[in-house]
Amino acid sequence: MTLHADPASLTPAAASPSTGRLILVGAGPGAADLLTLRALRHLQEADVVFHDRLIDPAVLALVNPRALLRDVGKAVGANLWPQTRICAEIIAAAQRGQRVLRLKSGDPSIFGRAAEEIEAARLHGIPVEIVPGITAACAAAASLCQPLTTRGQSRQLVIASATGQSANDACLPAALQPGSSYALYMAIHRIDTLVAELAAQGLPPETAIRIVSAASTAQERVLEAPLHRLAAQVRQQGIANPAILLFTMPATASQPQATAVTIAAATC
Amino acid sequence: MTLHADPASLTPAAASPSTGRLILVGAGPGAADLLTLRALRHLQEADVVFHDRLIDPAVLALVNPRALLRDVGKAVGANLWPQTRICAEIIAAAQRGQRVLRLKSGDPSIFGRAAEEIEAARLHGIPVEIVPGITAACAAAASLCQPLTTRGQSRQLVIASATGQSANDACLPAALQPGSSYALYMAIHRIDTLVAELAAQGLPPETAIRIVSAASTAQERVLEAPLHRLAAQVRQQGIANPAILLFTMPATASQPQATAVTIAAATC
Repeated sequence: MTLHADPASLTPAAASPSTGRLILVGAGPGAADLLTLRALRHLQEADVVFHDRLIDPAVLALVNPRALLRDVGKAVGANLWPQTRICAEIIAAAQRGQRVLRLKSGDPSIFGRAAEEIEAARLHGIPVEIVPGITAACAAAASLCQPLTTRGQSRQLVIASATGQSANDACLPAALQPGSSYALYMAIHRIDTLVAELAAQGLPPETAIRIVSAASTAQERVLEAPLHRLAAQVRQQGIANPAILLFTMPATASQPQATAVTIAAATC
Repeated sequence: MTLHADPASLTPAAASPSTGRLILVGAGPGAADLLTLRALRHLQEADVVFHDRLIDPAVLALVNPRALLRDVGKAVGANLWPQTRICAEIIAAAQRGQRVLRLKSGDPSIFGRAAEEIEAARLHGIPVEIVPGITAACAAAASLCQPLTTRGQSRQLVIASATGQSANDACLPAALQPGSSYALYMAIHRIDTLVAELAAQGLPPETAIRIVSAASTAQERVLEAPLHRLAAQVRQQGIANPAILLFTMPATASQPQATAVTIAAATC
């Protein structure tokens, strides 16, 4: 290997305007010990951290104490900052030579609205990187100690956002497919509409639905109810977003599948 | 809070046969720094680690040096140990009072065949826990710096295994849905069949397909090709499993969706 004695390569990251960069970091579901080692390193090396409202205080406590913390306030139905402002401010900070960390709940690649920020960085010639995180569906399954896919029962997992764009939108983005497991994000605030849509799409009323809210955090709540009692239970127990709703659409003979599915628990 | 002075609660975890437990740990995609802090702690506290063949040596290097490492050899088409033997050995170790760590690539809840091992532990009254990990789709998206979902283009992500049970099985578990993004695991070994199925399901021949093999590791390879040239490119470049295949099924007017989708890159 040839050593290129380029002085720039020996300069510390924050020393020159040309070394500004944007790192989109997945904070995971909330528990600080579900950060990756790589995410922790970036938290400790950041100059400025733009974070969503849902980021747990235990995670923020791990940020470099000399870094500037900026709450951009994203929560369902409450964006303190519009996306254009977030993009403008992260670009400006990177152009000042800072290591800009954009800290997002879960994994930045799944419903993280990362595309806008990546595109903005690329337009301005700013190096950009994604550090993956534990997405909420995986954390919810871990909390329940129940896998998202089970051999012989589900050969695909559908991860969907149940937020919709407005109150009149459908909650479900597409038709339910037999033999598929579903993880619906942010599924609580229109639970009556969602339950009606699931029933209309043929999900049997006795199907077990599991909800995990604030998975992995001290505020974690778990609810299990059959579909036909779900909305009442959610209200009775005061379950709120952020929450993941999990179920499997049964494979039935009346709904043909591309692949034969054996309905059998494969236990040893 | 009342302090219960139960001597058993003061005994170190490994000291008594009654404290044996099973922890299913997601090793993430390969890079050691994509382990979570919690996974690292469990690696360092384990008495015995049963690991799949795909676990990166950099991850295994972090295991407690006093722990017994057992390679159960799972790889596509090559299971050194049948599942029944894995279950029997992890249960026997836990019954001897050991902290048994079952280390799985990616996240244990996604195509991790965790259900059999959880069920076996529960049948024997052994405490069991899942530690989530970064699943390969998230790692592949991070490597490409390209999100799995993009606002306005895809409102759901379908994660599917393209392995099938035998050579005659379909690769795809269900019909492609417009406006959905797909991450297909282990998609390479029958790439010709898979490409034919994707085309038959209406995926346009010019659709950009991205493949990331060995995401996040030193062996990582990235390939991007239109669907109609994908199989030839995979062969020419010698791309092999483990690999994730990523694409978005376009939302088209001819295929109705539950939710209106605006085809527009939302950039700032």
